[in-house]
Amino acid sequence: MNGFRETIGNIVDHKISQRFIVILLFVNALTLGLETSDEIMSTYGSWIGDINDQIPYIFVIEIAARLIARGRSFFKEAWNIFDVIIITVSFLPSGSAFSALRALRILRVLHVISLVPRMRHVVAAMIRSLPQIGSIVALLLIISYISSVIVTHLYGVDYPELFGSIGRSMLTLFQLMTLEGWAAEVVRPVMETHPYSVLLFIPYMLMTAFAILNLFTAVLVDSMQLIQQNYSYERSENETRSIIKTELADVKDDLSTLSVEIKKLRADIEAQSKSDG
Amino acid sequence: MNGFRETIGNIVDHKISQRFIVILLFVNALTLGLETSDEIMSTYGSWIGDINDQIPYIFVIEIAARLIARGRSFFKEAWNIFDVIIITVSFLPSGSAFSALRALRILRVLHVISLVPRMRHVVAAMIRSLPQIGSIVALLLIISYISSVIVTHLYGVDYPELFGSIGRSMLTLFQLMTLEGWAAEVVRPVMETHPYSVLLFIPYMLMTAFAILNLFTAVLVDSMQLIQQNYSYERSENETRSIIKTELADVKDDLSTLSVEIKKLRADIEAQSKSDG
Amino acid sequence: MNGFRETIGNIVDHKISQRFIVILLFVNALTLGLETSDEIMSTYGSWIGDINDQIPYIFVIEIAARLIARGRSFFKEAWNIFDVIIITVSFLPSGSAFSALRALRILRVLHVISLVPRMRHVVAAMIRSLPQIGSIVALLLIISYISSVIVTHLYGVDYPELFGSIGRSMLTLFQLMTLEGWAAEVVRPVMETHPYSVLLFIPYMLMTAFAILNLFTAVLVDSMQLIQQNYSYERSENETRSIIKTELADVKDDLSTLSVEIKKLRADIEAQSKSDG
Amino acid sequence: MNGFRETIGNIVDHKISQRFIVILLFVNALTLGLETSDEIMSTYGSWIGDINDQIPYIFVIEIAARLIARGRSFFKEAWNIFDVIIITVSFLPSGSAFSALRALRILRVLHVISLVPRMRHVVAAMIRSLPQIGSIVALLLIISYISSVIVTHLYGVDYPELFGSIGRSMLTLFQLMTLEGWAAEVVRPVMETHPYSVLLFIPYMLMTAFAILNLFTAVLVDSMQLIQQNYSYERSENETRSIIKTELADVKDDLSTLSVEIKKLRADIEAQSKSDG
Repeated sequence: MNGFRETIGNIVDHKISQRFIVILLFVNALTLGLETSDEIMSTYGSWIGDINDQIPYIFVIEIAARLIARGRSFFKEAWNIFDVIIITVSFLPSGSAFSALRALRILRVLHVISLVPRMRHVVAAMIRSLPQIGSIVALLLIISYISSVIVTHLYGVDYPELFGSIGRSMLTLFQLMTLEGWAAEVVRPVMETHPYSVLLFIPYMLMTAFAILNLFTAVLVDSMQLIQQNYSYERSENETRSIIKTELADVKDDLSTLSVEIKKLRADIEAQSKSDG
Repeated sequence: MNGFRETIGNIVDHKISQRFIVILLFVNALTLGLETSDEIMSTYGSWIGDINDQIPYIFVIEIAARLIARGRSFFKEAWNIFDVIIITVSFLPSGSAFSALRALRILRVLHVISLVPRMRHVVAAMIRSLPQIGSIVALLLIISYISSVIVTHLYGVDYPELFGSIGRSMLTLFQLMTLEGWAAEVVRPVMETHPYSVLLFIPYMLMTAFAILNLFTAVLVDSMQLIQQNYSYERSENETRSIIKTELADVKDDLSTLSVEIKKLRADIEAQSKSDG
Repeated sequence: MNGFRETIGNIVDHKISQRFIVILLFVNALTLGLETSDEIMSTYGSWIGDINDQIPYIFVIEIAARLIARGRSFFKEAWNIFDVIIITVSFLPSGSAFSALRALRILRVLHVISLVPRMRHVVAAMIRSLPQIGSIVALLLIISYISSVIVTHLYGVDYPELFGSIGRSMLTLFQLMTLEGWAAEVVRPVMETHPYSVLLFIPYMLMTAFAILNLFTAVLVDSMQLIQQNYSYERSENETRSIIKTELADVKDDLSTLSVEIKKLRADIEAQSKSDG
Repeated sequence: MNGFRETIGNIVDHKISQRFIVILLFVNALTLGLETSDEIMSTYGSWIGDINDQIPYIFVIEIAARLIARGRSFFKEAWNIFDVIIITVSFLPSGSAFSALRALRILRVLHVISLVPRMRHVVAAMIRSLPQIGSIVALLLIISYISSVIVTHLYGVDYPELFGSIGRSMLTLFQLMTLEGWAAEVVRPVMETHPYSVLLFIPYMLMTAFAILNLFTAVLVDSMQLIQQNYSYERSENETRSIIKTELADVKDDLSTLSVEIKKLRADIEAQSKSDG
């Protein structure tokens, strides 16, 4: 049994089988993409449909094989759970009329992230930098919500399209935050009837821009701190210290040898003195 | 009396009471948000109105309790003053017809910033980075004002919507600074009649973009400097120095021991020489 | 004569006279701004006109006084030359009908930059970071020019508004570089007739965005390098070295003392040996 | 033969000949630019046409001369191959009616990059920073493709202009990524019929913005790492170490001298002791 699991583990972890799965993922990405073209589907529809129906079973087999090979430790790695979820989601009743669900099948291509080490590394690095920005994002959300309630009260009646409800106000304020069309679509129209609204919108834009700048700085500073710590500095300094210690150990050895010799010398003289005496 | 103040202080600073206030703030944020929806208000209006009328008194009690517990030192912390101001502002005649004033009640949710340490930390960090950008912001304001006066003179008559007054020119130049709609809404229309205006607008955009880049750099460099100073470097170097000193103190000890022994030796020889003599 | 120059120098450099000039500059900025408002000018026009005519003479006197005080060294400082130029420009025939020239009078407010040390510092820092980006800006210009010639050939006939001449193409490509309205105003319209144009525009946008990212990095890295060099590191390392040298000089002194004593000892023994012999 | 190659090498590498080529490139850039103006071409067309026909031969001669001078090692430098390619491309049948091909002649101006060391340096630095962003760009491509397939399924039928095919969806999603016109042109129109689409678009924008932020960080951190490594730190620390070693070598020399002297001393005493005995 154990030998069987080991054999499967070797097959699953083999470079060739991993590359085969990656290539299959890209083929499937392509065929799922082609499915969106009515022109191509009218000619090659049955072929592409078959491929899209059959390929995913290979991914299921691959993950099942890995589950057998790893045993319980399979569920300890986050990436495996990620794989199980995206493959499961992509198997939701695809034959049904719900195009929304059929669309989700393409999500199985995300499996490639867990297979290619560099991808895994990048995603892990991005997730690691999330906590740094958590507090600033929370602050931005609070400010957005508060601002939304205020602008809904103030301009909701006159501009229902932009500020008719909390949800619409949040979207419009998000638009202001991205600075997209703020002048022509939001600030200038509202200023027509509420000229002082500019004293609310401009500070809001400046404040959120400043928050995003700080968010950026937080991510960057965190990355820099990481290099500084990884940097050979500590190692270099330790090397210098060990050189100091080694060299001085030599000196101390020399000194203790000298000390011994002087003691012998003294003993000689005393012996001589006695023999003289 | 003192024991009473201490008891109140313990209650106010207790985790449970703080969490209770935070939860109440979020509940109030929600109910104040729901108030913007006519649909919900027509059904649950009296309930939500009651909640929105009663909850703020709890915040007043909490701040009053903290004032009693802290005494005069209450006013020494900026966050307490911030709390008093936002709660006071949120109590402005909310029953009146002025929707603008009613809108301000949501500001009391900002109280959450002073209650959650991480929030307080983020806001403090952002305020700390303000002085770094003060000079650049002042420079941007001067340049904006000067440019506004110039463009009002030059294009105010032909484009009153964009450059009709100093205020409008400043808004339009701020729009150019954010690069939002600069081509379709400002530069291309003005170029129709004043083709050389592009030689004013493009340099203005480049200059302000460069100033913002420098503003960004100032904030970043300041943050980096902070890490470098916090970094263990100085400590590490000091450690190396103390190793050098300790080790060499040993060597010096050895040497002075040797010196003493040689002196004794010489004394011996001289003694012997005399006894010989 | 020398005493006279010194007295004037003391007056010009005095805090009070400098603050007076700064305040006067802001007053003049305000009155020059008010001049753009027809409403205010119809009532207070003569007053404001008088102020705007008289104030600049004070600036001329101030600069003349500084010229007298400094003598030839006046022209050695770039800021003085900057002041002379902006004051001269602001004196161009303002009474004439050329609103363009009248508009330039506001430029004299820039004098404030040379008077406030922090402003001067910020501008100097910004100018210092220019050479870092020179090569990248030159590269962007070359790429823009080349791209302009290409797109003028390709799309100039069909879209004369956007790509009718080198100048228009450069403006449109600058618009693409700022990503402003690239989709609705440039790429989507051109794609109607030239669907493959997207393969030219998107790479152009990515390339320029990447160049700007590198430009940003260059400015930042330069600033960081400056902190690193200013940082106490070098000094700290030098201190460690001087500790090593001082401490070891002590050890060497001890050793040479020992050596002298041993030589004396040997001399003693030899002397004794002779006296014995 | 060798002397001939050396002479040509000296001519090609000479400052004057290099500046001559750079000037000629700029002249050619200008004349190729003038060719786009019908007005100028109707008057000076034959002159400009002649110049544009003759100048490129000089570039061919220059590159041929360099090929002769360098021999096989010519093809080892990437910049030479770059030059050969852009000159070849610019010679594609320019007399024909294909304006597209005629447009490419301007590409030969890129030759200036390989001639000016600073340009070469900047481009090399930019290319060097590409691998840092490779993984993030690959991730963005995968996410874009997957999202394109999903939105084509979901909104392709209702909004054929924006999401009618994978290609169009990718363009629209790229537009969302650049935040250009996302509100007025994409999100608001689609929300009319699919109100929940906002839950797809906003996270997509946030995710890609976060990925680009990380891309930026990667480039910056890489540049910083480079300064840290180039920084005199390692050298400085090595200097400290060599000082330690040199100084202690002195000490050890002193000690071994002492040791020798003590040994001689002992020999003396023993000799004396024998002569006494």
